[in-house]
Amino acid sequence: MELWYTEEHSSGTRFSLRATRHVHQEKTPFQQLDVIETEEYGRIMLLDGLVMLTEKDEFVYHELITHVPSACLPDARRVLVIGGGDGGTARELLRYPQLTRVDMVEIDEAVVMASRKFFPTLNVKLDDPRLTIHYRDGMEFVKEHENQYDLIIVDSTDPIGPGEHLFTESFYRDCYAALRPQGILVSQAATSFSAYYLKLQREQCAFVKAAFDRLFLYLGHIPTYPTGTWSFLCAVKGDINPAVAFDRRSTTPFTDQLGYYNAGMHRQAFSLPNFIYRELAGLIDNQLAESV
Amino acid sequence: MELWYTEEHSSGTRFSLRATRHVHQEKTPFQQLDVIETEEYGRIMLLDGLVMLTEKDEFVYHELITHVPSACLPDARRVLVIGGGDGGTARELLRYPQLTRVDMVEIDEAVVMASRKFFPTLNVKLDDPRLTIHYRDGMEFVKEHENQYDLIIVDSTDPIGPGEHLFTESFYRDCYAALRPQGILVSQAATSFSAYYLKLQREQCAFVKAAFDRLFLYLGHIPTYPTGTWSFLCAVKGDINPAVAFDRRSTTPFTDQLGYYNAGMHRQAFSLPNFIYRELAGLIDNQLAESV
Repeated sequence: MELWYTEEHSSGTRFSLRATRHVHQEKTPFQQLDVIETEEYGRIMLLDGLVMLTEKDEFVYHELITHVPSACLPDARRVLVIGGGDGGTARELLRYPQLTRVDMVEIDEAVVMASRKFFPTLNVKLDDPRLTIHYRDGMEFVKEHENQYDLIIVDSTDPIGPGEHLFTESFYRDCYAALRPQGILVSQAATSFSAYYLKLQREQCAFVKAAFDRLFLYLGHIPTYPTGTWSFLCAVKGDINPAVAFDRRSTTPFTDQLGYYNAGMHRQAFSLPNFIYRELAGLIDNQLAESV
Repeated sequence: MELWYTEEHSSGTRFSLRATRHVHQEKTPFQQLDVIETEEYGRIMLLDGLVMLTEKDEFVYHELITHVPSACLPDARRVLVIGGGDGGTARELLRYPQLTRVDMVEIDEAVVMASRKFFPTLNVKLDDPRLTIHYRDGMEFVKEHENQYDLIIVDSTDPIGPGEHLFTESFYRDCYAALRPQGILVSQAATSFSAYYLKLQREQCAFVKAAFDRLFLYLGHIPTYPTGTWSFLCAVKGDINPAVAFDRRSTTPFTDQLGYYNAGMHRQAFSLPNFIYRELAGLIDNQLAESV
């Protein structure tokens, strides 16, 4: 028997992974959660039928969503993670000894349980004493915590499903208020390489742009996400320029444990193809400089 | 009726495109050639069932394979293209007024015919007076042209099929001999993000490394290629460092016609994720510099 998991990346494209075992399936109060074992990407976690992570390429996503902003905020002490129940973002964040507190607000406890049970390479820091997991709605939590965080990481599902309200202008305004005077919000932000996702990305950029002082887009290579290129928004409260003002040695103490991130990748992630500058003109502050 | 084209990117992964029409099919003396119209990527050309290009994302591949080396060789006059019958590489190369001669050695005339007939955005420079198309085997052609070219672009099919002998050490040695004293060879070089392709890539790097003075790898985002990340080898005869020594304004006269390439993308393409430095250690000269 051949078992294939197929995801519709758009109405015109599909991506399939050969599965060796359907490890777990569960209808949580919020979504459908599946764990599948695949031939090429190890175990994968699916929420409402969409790939959230694979054991093999999750390092790219988690390193980019944490180390890019962290390198810009060497004095950060408190971080808020919205979503992130799989533990990957916490694993990367808690490499930094200077962090004193990480609040993770995950609406669905089942995601954390699944990580504890099925993803040994992701759950390694879920019991770190600096981490507090709040099983609540992220939007409400943010409203109650004004001026408290140096960094907010929105590590959520896609704009459709339980994470939907995390892609609204009022949510980003509340995040801005929850940040300290020089702070950063990072969020996954789809891909510009597909018309369907580009439309969502433009809407998201417009919301964030309206709420923050500066907005930058950066890119990473993630094979199992639609088009293989995924974007992140780096929204700034204050005047940080994350493309150039970062500590080039921030990850040096644990470089040998990282698969993707390094200072060269940090800077390159903010360089964008011409067509993205055109599509997002007026929305992002990345500079297309011939003299870069 | 639903029509889907499915490509096995590896034994464990498949990528599918919804097709609206099978425009053309032909058994050439060398390979099976198909043209399909798809919903999301426009027309695509397939050789032996593998995607060679799509109208929508071919610009990334063709801009990277031409403008990266061209920016390092502002005085280049003569270029040899091995393969490239679809016309995309010639289209990009012939934007440079300083080039006096481009020899394209395409073994399969049917590829050129298909471009002329079905790909109006690719065939635009096939009748440029500076371009000569030789319908011959590239390996033989290279042997006969010592010390003649500033740049050689290997724009071939994959290491399996009619392009197979273009991935051997003796071929790369002949290319080295065909270059002038400060010259560059560029070749597509699979992806490091999949175990299957990484093995091919390591072999190819070893062959090229043995034949050339310096070897660099650079990356691009190409949605329809396996893993969405594709690599190129930039092999140097002489002492050029293509990651830093390039003319930042070489494409300025036609920037508005490019979708991908710019000076920022040039430099970033040579920054690699940590795991690639580890996997290709000793084979490539890219520098993992914290001070980049």
